[in-house]
Amino acid sequence: MSFNYNEVKEAYERISPYVRKTPLEQSFYLGGDGREYFFKLESFQKVKSFKIRGALNKMLTLTPEEIQRGVATISSGNHGSSVSYAASLLGIKNAKVIVPETTPQSKVDKIQYFGSEALLMGKNYDEAHAMGMKYIEEHGMTYIDAYYDDPKIYGGQGTVAIEILEQNPDIDTIVVPIGGGGLITGIAVAAKAIKPDIRIVGVQTEACPAMIKSYEDGVFYEEYPCEDSLCDSLIGGIGALSYEMAKDYVDDFIAVSEETIGKAVSFMARDEKYIVEAGSCTTVAAVMDFRERIGGKNVALVLSGGNIDGAVLYELMGKYK
Amino acid sequence: MSFNYNEVKEAYERISPYVRKTPLEQSFYLGGDGREYFFKLESFQKVKSFKIRGALNKMLTLTPEEIQRGVATISSGNHGSSVSYAASLLGIKNAKVIVPETTPQSKVDKIQYFGSEALLMGKNYDEAHAMGMKYIEEHGMTYIDAYYDDPKIYGGQGTVAIEILEQNPDIDTIVVPIGGGGLITGIAVAAKAIKPDIRIVGVQTEACPAMIKSYEDGVFYEEYPCEDSLCDSLIGGIGALSYEMAKDYVDDFIAVSEETIGKAVSFMARDEKYIVEAGSCTTVAAVMDFRERIGGKNVALVLSGGNIDGAVLYELMGKYK
Repeated sequence: MSFNYNEVKEAYERISPYVRKTPLEQSFYLGGDGREYFFKLESFQKVKSFKIRGALNKMLTLTPEEIQRGVATISSGNHGSSVSYAASLLGIKNAKVIVPETTPQSKVDKIQYFGSEALLMGKNYDEAHAMGMKYIEEHGMTYIDAYYDDPKIYGGQGTVAIEILEQNPDIDTIVVPIGGGGLITGIAVAAKAIKPDIRIVGVQTEACPAMIKSYEDGVFYEEYPCEDSLCDSLIGGIGALSYEMAKDYVDDFIAVSEETIGKAVSFMARDEKYIVEAGSCTTVAAVMDFRERIGGKNVALVLSGGNIDGAVLYELMGKYK
Repeated sequence: MSFNYNEVKEAYERISPYVRKTPLEQSFYLGGDGREYFFKLESFQKVKSFKIRGALNKMLTLTPEEIQRGVATISSGNHGSSVSYAASLLGIKNAKVIVPETTPQSKVDKIQYFGSEALLMGKNYDEAHAMGMKYIEEHGMTYIDAYYDDPKIYGGQGTVAIEILEQNPDIDTIVVPIGGGGLITGIAVAAKAIKPDIRIVGVQTEACPAMIKSYEDGVFYEEYPCEDSLCDSLIGGIGALSYEMAKDYVDDFIAVSEETIGKAVSFMARDEKYIVEAGSCTTVAAVMDFRERIGGKNVALVLSGGNIDGAVLYELMGKYK
């Protein structure tokens, strides 16, 4: 397994015609005392998530024969919607997104809205995964990895760093949410290639600090027992490639509380006027609680997605005024 | 007074390096039955409002001597913030935004945050206007019109239409909120020059239907007595140039209720995940209540701004679930 900046540069060339160069917008309210903060708004990306970057990069490198046999993934979240949309954007007709039978209809509808077929399999995610991988293999399809170890996925996600440093070359610190670790690994490898002294800070929720614990315990937590969390998109274990590489490229790892994440969601909607999913607001929460530890003069906060349930958003806006 | 598509084309060349080409994003939930709806998200424009377009276009045509003498406007809303930001973006050092002494500190802070000086004058808007115009004249400054009759302002606002039709040439109907009328007049003139059979629909709140009443009564309502409204940005009379031209270029005018506007704000946040100010949500409200009357197969809804008070947003999300 390996992954380097060339993968990201190539991905950037490949996917630029298809993705949105999302705004890097200065915060009104977080800055001051010699520190300015900039939101990298992947919540405005197509399908409202950075995940489209990796999915497109992977699909754009398939052979005509592979395209003929089709692509598939197993995810009811942002990755599933992104694979659905990327496939329809590229005209890949045979594309399946496999989800558990218990998936809410609204999520199934969303996957299908973006153009691909949702296949319901198994009573939970583990069953869906086992049955799905079997289905994919039997049909000779290409599996579109979410974050495990495909350098094409990591390369696509890393293009966020190229955009940030093009948009503001003075950025000296990038704060990134960690779920499986694909986004932070891609960003860290790319950003340090472009600007070696840049600081990269990774953030997890205290409810699921899988990467932090992996490094503390010296154990690759491919799965991790999580507590209840607002951050659907950050729940679970980490990827093999991110476990291998992130520790060498990421300068600090911070765990933030669910309470501060809730405050950050409300602050972003009420004051900054952006709807950002809770997992992405971990980076804002980190500034709220660990401003000095993060440091930096020009700090980019990656807001990786905008998919938050309307009722949850409303509840948090009421709880934290 | 006159205004034509050339003004818009020239404005587009002039301001493109400075403004954001905002996304034209398909609605998830409004479409169906042969009609699709697309949000033109000027709520993601710099300063979160289309107003930056006209302000920049005007300032980019000033002579060095005019720049030396400075620019000013009278507005505590989106236009004031936009003038402040446009001036600082172009390095115009002598820029003043005049507001009434009663303006909330948060609005004053915002104007100054964008780089220009806020001057407090008079006990209400009328006094501020009288004193402000005197100040501007005495200091030989250039007044940056909000919507009254400056073709450079109308030309800048009209660039929204060029973007929409570049982004999706199949758009056959554009729905636009009407405040002073600069935005709809600019858009209508440009869109019909590019695509003569396109349909333009203007929307006002029932609380302040100044343009609709102007045409009904055959009276130019430069001022209009408004009822309480969620739509701060649409309150007041209309511009002279818009009164003169809009009736020939706009195919239909619709007034929507405050109730439906409130529903539309909540729907946009809870379901579509965009924070849009109430005045802009008039276009969504129009689809909710007048879908057949609006017609069209591919309909662009202009969401002109994203500045809504957090407490108002929360209240509407609670009232309309």
